[in-house]
Amino acid sequence: MIRRGTGGRDARIARRAERPQAPPFITRQLPPYELLSEEGLLAVESHADQLLSEIGMEIRGDEVAVDLWRKAGARIENDCRVHVPPGLARALVQGSAPAQFTQQARNPARNVRIGGMNTVFAPAYGSPFVTDLDRGRRYGTLDDFHNFIKLTYLTPWLHHSGGTVCEPVDVAVNKRHFDMLYAHIRYSDKPFMGSVTTAARAADSIEMCRCLFGADFVSRNCVILGNVNVNSPLVLDGEASRVIRTYAAARQAAVCVPFILGGAMGPVTTAGALAQCFAEALFCVALTQLESPGAPAILGNFLSSMSMRSGAPTFGTPEPALAYLAIGQLARRLGVPLRCGGNLCASKVADAQAASESANSLWPAFLAGANFMLHAAGWLEAGLAMSYEKFVMDVDQLGAFHTLARGLALDENGFALDAFREIGPGKHYLGSKHTLTNYQTDFYDFDLADNNSYEQWSAEGSRDQLSRANARWKRLLEEYQPPDLDPAVDERLREYIERRKSEMPDAIV
Amino acid sequence: MIRRGTGGRDARIARRAERPQAPPFITRQLPPYELLSEEGLLAVESHADQLLSEIGMEIRGDEVAVDLWRKAGARIENDCRVHVPPGLARALVQGSAPAQFTQQARNPARNVRIGGMNTVFAPAYGSPFVTDLDRGRRYGTLDDFHNFIKLTYLTPWLHHSGGTVCEPVDVAVNKRHFDMLYAHIRYSDKPFMGSVTTAARAADSIEMCRCLFGADFVSRNCVILGNVNVNSPLVLDGEASRVIRTYAAARQAAVCVPFILGGAMGPVTTAGALAQCFAEALFCVALTQLESPGAPAILGNFLSSMSMRSGAPTFGTPEPALAYLAIGQLARRLGVPLRCGGNLCASKVADAQAASESANSLWPAFLAGANFMLHAAGWLEAGLAMSYEKFVMDVDQLGAFHTLARGLALDENGFALDAFREIGPGKHYLGSKHTLTNYQTDFYDFDLADNNSYEQWSAEGSRDQLSRANARWKRLLEEYQPPDLDPAVDERLREYIERRKSEMPDAIV
Repeated sequence: MIRRGTGGRDARIARRAERPQAPPFITRQLPPYELLSEEGLLAVESHADQLLSEIGMEIRGDEVAVDLWRKAGARIENDCRVHVPPGLARALVQGSAPAQFTQQARNPARNVRIGGMNTVFAPAYGSPFVTDLDRGRRYGTLDDFHNFIKLTYLTPWLHHSGGTVCEPVDVAVNKRHFDMLYAHIRYSDKPFMGSVTTAARAADSIEMCRCLFGADFVSRNCVILGNVNVNSPLVLDGEASRVIRTYAAARQAAVCVPFILGGAMGPVTTAGALAQCFAEALFCVALTQLESPGAPAILGNFLSSMSMRSGAPTFGTPEPALAYLAIGQLARRLGVPLRCGGNLCASKVADAQAASESANSLWPAFLAGANFMLHAAGWLEAGLAMSYEKFVMDVDQLGAFHTLARGLALDENGFALDAFREIGPGKHYLGSKHTLTNYQTDFYDFDLADNNSYEQWSAEGSRDQLSRANARWKRLLEEYQPPDLDPAVDERLREYIERRKSEMPDAIV
Repeated sequence: MIRRGTGGRDARIARRAERPQAPPFITRQLPPYELLSEEGLLAVESHADQLLSEIGMEIRGDEVAVDLWRKAGARIENDCRVHVPPGLARALVQGSAPAQFTQQARNPARNVRIGGMNTVFAPAYGSPFVTDLDRGRRYGTLDDFHNFIKLTYLTPWLHHSGGTVCEPVDVAVNKRHFDMLYAHIRYSDKPFMGSVTTAARAADSIEMCRCLFGADFVSRNCVILGNVNVNSPLVLDGEASRVIRTYAAARQAAVCVPFILGGAMGPVTTAGALAQCFAEALFCVALTQLESPGAPAILGNFLSSMSMRSGAPTFGTPEPALAYLAIGQLARRLGVPLRCGGNLCASKVADAQAASESANSLWPAFLAGANFMLHAAGWLEAGLAMSYEKFVMDVDQLGAFHTLARGLALDENGFALDAFREIGPGKHYLGSKHTLTNYQTDFYDFDLADNNSYEQWSAEGSRDQLSRANARWKRLLEEYQPPDLDPAVDERLREYIERRKSEMPDAIV
């Protein structure tokens, strides 16, 4: 991309037009990586079955869900421990859950297809803190929330607006979801996620979608995702269970995510944590089908290892990478879309540690065939902080994976025989017809990489990537212009929010 | 690893004993990644055949090599352009080149097996500059050369001492190879590489191996590698050709490496650059077999893309990653060991750019099944500088790939059913018997990662990984103690070097 000085509105529009074109989501031409043999996959599946049947999964505080399982044939112990006969959860999922589905965006050109050979990138989720080089680390606010939605809207390499891109702690806990949903709708036209902190907030999120898309459209289409954490090990909290059922009942997609810090919420050995993770996610996806057969759902996982020096969670380590690669295979066999990976790291600053750890998460998740990748941009500090600089760095990396996903073009132009005939041995290809024809489309060029000579780099101030990233996100925010929104829709949304907010006092939970 | 204050000799020995144990090389349990279909692989092979037969490869200034090709059935044009009939190069290689071989180290416990499912990591090669945070960027010296050999000796994650770990520019160009070889032998006991700048220096390198191992042993074993660059596109310089033949004649392994900067030394499209790279390397490996059937050899490649903004080489981009994945398949079909990848980057500093680019090179090369990975540690600035800090950062990453390579342990301990039975739902595994039994061996922990809380990290000075790496390599060098070397061998080596140096005046080429 050609860099220019900042100018007026026209210059900004011109720069916008220069942004690389990208499809609304990735369709991978690359085959997924196959880590385990058939025998290995069967072993993981049978251990997951054994966990669900012998140990069982507890649903703590949702009798309706327990009853759904009872009626499906599970044995219930102490009114909450659900022992699922081997094969039942899998049969429930395979019987009705869609292998792929489309999440609608308010701009249909931004619709994303989730499942199969498709990959959708979404920004990081849930950080209480935000950080940038100018203002340092602080609690996130609604302004920060808006900024990350705008940055996500501006990049072609994120396909999805995400959900809680940071916690807007300046808004009451019980009212944040209204402002977050409104911001996703108002400042972007990409698909988004709804609240999962209570079933009532999930219902509000869906209701706001009805204001946006119309109730009839929402009843027939997936327009929102809800990312629900399992309380690993082997517990599904009643509120989480109701949130899953709320999304499923509305035919919207619950993303069912065990969060397993190996050695704490699961065994320290990866095979066991993997079987557990698969069992827990399978149990929740099966619950969506018990609630509403045919509702879309996503099999999630979030696996981390632990520093045995300090007990702290670690990221970018090889154990979760192996688990990602295996769970990709398990999800394909099950036939449901997979949420996996992200640009995860434990570093407190967007340095080499952050970049290595992030790449070590992104590579295996992508090759595993992840269909929905949350936390793909901005994640720092084991998820405690959303970083403006890390965000644009991650996005730059995601761009490269769009090229990688296309695979090798083994056609006549790709093999370039005419160029070899034109140039022959010992000469260079810079001026060849083939190079001139192809140079604008070939070679992904990292926007934030400095490939200049040492001398030129020194003359320009010896800036590292962190410093260049700081300039980059500020320039992007300057360029931002909101997409149009039908004023009648805007009015409906604002009225709904005003009414609902007035019905409840501010609360801190 | 527990960190202690520095102390006397006993403390250093104790710290040495603490270093992680690692095998002398990696034997991957992970299956290699399969990018291309059979049809795609045949297309690349047939285009490589077409390049060798129709365009041809020039050997400029080595009549002996041209004659070897003529006798083998190639058509020679203008005394130097070698047109190889389709299939001939492949038949020559498959007829006699070993699919795997062992390179002997002077310490037999450090012998490495090159080929098959094995991977050998070696440090970066050939930088004129070195850099560290204390002294900045400067020309490399013999002292720096010694330091990098010592650092390589100290880490369990590099299996090979490498070759020109940096250029010792304080030694005359025509005498450097003596000091470099001596340093590899004296300061390490890992296997190493010899000189390739002239055939005479290659012969000196082999002669020094005879001083070390005995002539008879050298005639029967591979004890040294020579890394020879092809003058892409489609030219093999006469001196390079003689160097290849010198190593092959002595039954030592030439690593045959096309260096293709796409758009300059080859076409801008990746399929064409890949076919060219494979053709050039195949041609050189075939030459080793014409010179000495059965001699070990390695199929190399070095592919880079180019910034279309500046014409500078770029690293960690997706196009070389795709080429790596494909050439891994081609090498396996050919049945020769593959050199591929490394921790490559264009960054001038060991920042996030350096780390991302390096990971984007390391991951595909490793999954491609690279057997010998040069440039695995220290590489900065497109190879112009060897960085002390980057070196220890890269090594930390290589350690993780040892764990990754082992794959998932799907055994009774791995699945941890007893732990699930002990703990059940909703409780933590920190104190479980299974965790206590396994915690010391499970979870790779990056030595240079900071996984502490933000507060603790701040209290400790908010250091980034670059700063921690600076402390790390200095501490390692303090700990260094040379391995024993038989004084009689040392004497023979010193005598050989003294005599040979006295036979020539210093020269600058």
